[in-house]
Amino acid sequence: MLGSCLETVRKTTPLVHNITNYVTVNDVANALLACGGSPIMSDEPEDVEDITSICAGLNINIGTLNQRSIEGMFRAGAKANELGHTVLLDPVGAGASALRTNTAIRLMESIRFQVIRGNVSEIKTLALGSGKTRGVDADAADTVTDRNLGDMVAFAKAFAARTGAIAAITGAIDLVADANVCYVIRNGRPEMSRITGTGCQLSGIATAYAAANPENRTEAVAAAVCLMGLAGEIAFARMQLGDGNSTYRNRIIDAICNMDAETLNRGAKYELR
Amino acid sequence: MLGSCLETVRKTTPLVHNITNYVTVNDVANALLACGGSPIMSDEPEDVEDITSICAGLNINIGTLNQRSIEGMFRAGAKANELGHTVLLDPVGAGASALRTNTAIRLMESIRFQVIRGNVSEIKTLALGSGKTRGVDADAADTVTDRNLGDMVAFAKAFAARTGAIAAITGAIDLVADANVCYVIRNGRPEMSRITGTGCQLSGIATAYAAANPENRTEAVAAAVCLMGLAGEIAFARMQLGDGNSTYRNRIIDAICNMDAETLNRGAKYELR
Amino acid sequence: MLGSCLETVRKTTPLVHNITNYVTVNDVANALLACGGSPIMSDEPEDVEDITSICAGLNINIGTLNQRSIEGMFRAGAKANELGHTVLLDPVGAGASALRTNTAIRLMESIRFQVIRGNVSEIKTLALGSGKTRGVDADAADTVTDRNLGDMVAFAKAFAARTGAIAAITGAIDLVADANVCYVIRNGRPEMSRITGTGCQLSGIATAYAAANPENRTEAVAAAVCLMGLAGEIAFARMQLGDGNSTYRNRIIDAICNMDAETLNRGAKYELR
Repeated sequence: MLGSCLETVRKTTPLVHNITNYVTVNDVANALLACGGSPIMSDEPEDVEDITSICAGLNINIGTLNQRSIEGMFRAGAKANELGHTVLLDPVGAGASALRTNTAIRLMESIRFQVIRGNVSEIKTLALGSGKTRGVDADAADTVTDRNLGDMVAFAKAFAARTGAIAAITGAIDLVADANVCYVIRNGRPEMSRITGTGCQLSGIATAYAAANPENRTEAVAAAVCLMGLAGEIAFARMQLGDGNSTYRNRIIDAICNMDAETLNRGAKYELR
Repeated sequence: MLGSCLETVRKTTPLVHNITNYVTVNDVANALLACGGSPIMSDEPEDVEDITSICAGLNINIGTLNQRSIEGMFRAGAKANELGHTVLLDPVGAGASALRTNTAIRLMESIRFQVIRGNVSEIKTLALGSGKTRGVDADAADTVTDRNLGDMVAFAKAFAARTGAIAAITGAIDLVADANVCYVIRNGRPEMSRITGTGCQLSGIATAYAAANPENRTEAVAAAVCLMGLAGEIAFARMQLGDGNSTYRNRIIDAICNMDAETLNRGAKYELR
Repeated sequence: MLGSCLETVRKTTPLVHNITNYVTVNDVANALLACGGSPIMSDEPEDVEDITSICAGLNINIGTLNQRSIEGMFRAGAKANELGHTVLLDPVGAGASALRTNTAIRLMESIRFQVIRGNVSEIKTLALGSGKTRGVDADAADTVTDRNLGDMVAFAKAFAARTGAIAAITGAIDLVADANVCYVIRNGRPEMSRITGTGCQLSGIATAYAAANPENRTEAVAAAVCLMGLAGEIAFARMQLGDGNSTYRNRIIDAICNMDAETLNRGAKYELR
């Protein structure tokens, strides 16, 4: 059950090393604390190996990459691989610039990722070595819909099989796939796209969930995706007249903070394919 | 009407490339989403040309400039100019350090800005090549008041004429001027100065407004300035006992998120000079 | 009285230069504004001397240090020392990596700090040149408790005597010590550890308090520590069903914003040892 993945995180407080963008980093830290993990941020190449060594997981997000932090990503990733830690890649904006696309692909060539989380455009870019990305948002033509669901499930499984990573492709419908099974998840609210950083928060949380649940990592990542979407639903239900995206952001993190196993089990909307 | 500028932004969702400071960057992103735009952040010199190419506008804010991001500003600005995009300069702290003053002046020499937004001290520094700035706040002696309004309107128009940019000089009274006309705007609340980043948010929003309304850019920037001030008023009216500047920050972004054309038209307080 | 330290800050609006991490920097800025100070952030080596020159205090936080910002810390610190400004060190993660430990120790060797604020693990690392740190949180074995209070008070005084800095060691029980006296402070809530950045906020505020109260700096730092803990208590009392750590963060800053001298005097829980 997904709820037991949540409880393992709350019991073990996995320490997660984040090399992430400076736009949403505060939300990532508070979301990690809310879910029961513990965040630490470090991107200086001379610092990252020590820091990642004391952690359980490493979350690499290329949202505001620079030459220094890119070097930090490679060094931290190599160390985390050596130590058998969970490593997640969030290829923010892959397809939107050559540097982002190439960095994500080079990271995948040199580091073994247990999880790769992005929107459809980003994951397609990594899969096909090309792709159209509208900034950091998915291209509309790339949406997962009920019409193309069979194809997208097959795509997600094939991507997972080829990379050896759990693929978490998030959007209106979320897919979490390994080579054999795909969770098709229908939690969440469209209003979440009016807030910056829900994807980045999810990447942090998914790292904690995967790190704390090494025996059933695919289920744990699915639990993290359901948690994020369900928190978006619960937070939306609390919105009052005059509230907007800033309050919604706070209430989503609040809902993560208050989530328990029973609520997650009851509220998760998914099927296995 | 100002409201039609708002509607154009909401209809066209302009993608705005921000090279901005790491203090208020999350608020800038959420404010851009709130107003109907879409934010992307990138400051790595090797990344910025690709990123700005897929955007409609570029917002350059020197609030936490460094040698790498300065190079990114020049490269992104040149590319945005080449592509005919809207480019805005927010010279945070010009006058407070030689590096800030010189960088802002060098940027103005090498890049064609459509909008320059700052407080009076910063704009005076750019105009006169000198100026007193108390950190990132305007010097009290520099305030626009009813007594010096005529002089300040003339100054704003002259600055706009000389630079070819719309001048947005914000404070207790806001001025938005091109060479021919000046909007004198009286929206806003003094309590907004107890929050970090309302100026940075406005610069992001003004970039989106100017980019989405190329035929009437001065009016669009005035609409953005009225929007920000009016959001401050609406948010203040919602403050409850025990609320302080952090809640006020959230409610201002919420008010931007909920603003519609009619509310903006009705609430905007300005005269043309 | 502690309240008079608060009033001095509100009356003099000390400008504080922060070289701090990008995780919690926005909260530090809003907390400084809330307490009556004024924040400015700059970490570029070529910028920091000018910026710190116009300030009253300098807050150095190594939470996301990098080679560039480390150089900025040394240059800003030297300039602030030369000008007789208040300088505070927040050695985030000292003990968690060699770079952090060594940077903190080198900073202490080259810069005269008036205040050093950290958790027990970090301060022990600086004192003993070693220590165990669980990421950015204190190691459980290091907690100040009623059982080891006498030893910890002696340790804090000795550390202050050796370094010449006021030692602010924060945790469940907070200690603020100079060579002669130690404030033992019991304000705060355990829930504050579910939010990122309350320590960073406190370091910013303590810099403002110490800068504005040069005649009674130890008392001023104790006032800042009581203020932060009391704000955590007041904010907690306002929590409603469904609220979580994100709303708590906002309410703490709100409570700082609304704090007055009388409330601080009445709510501060401390004894002198």
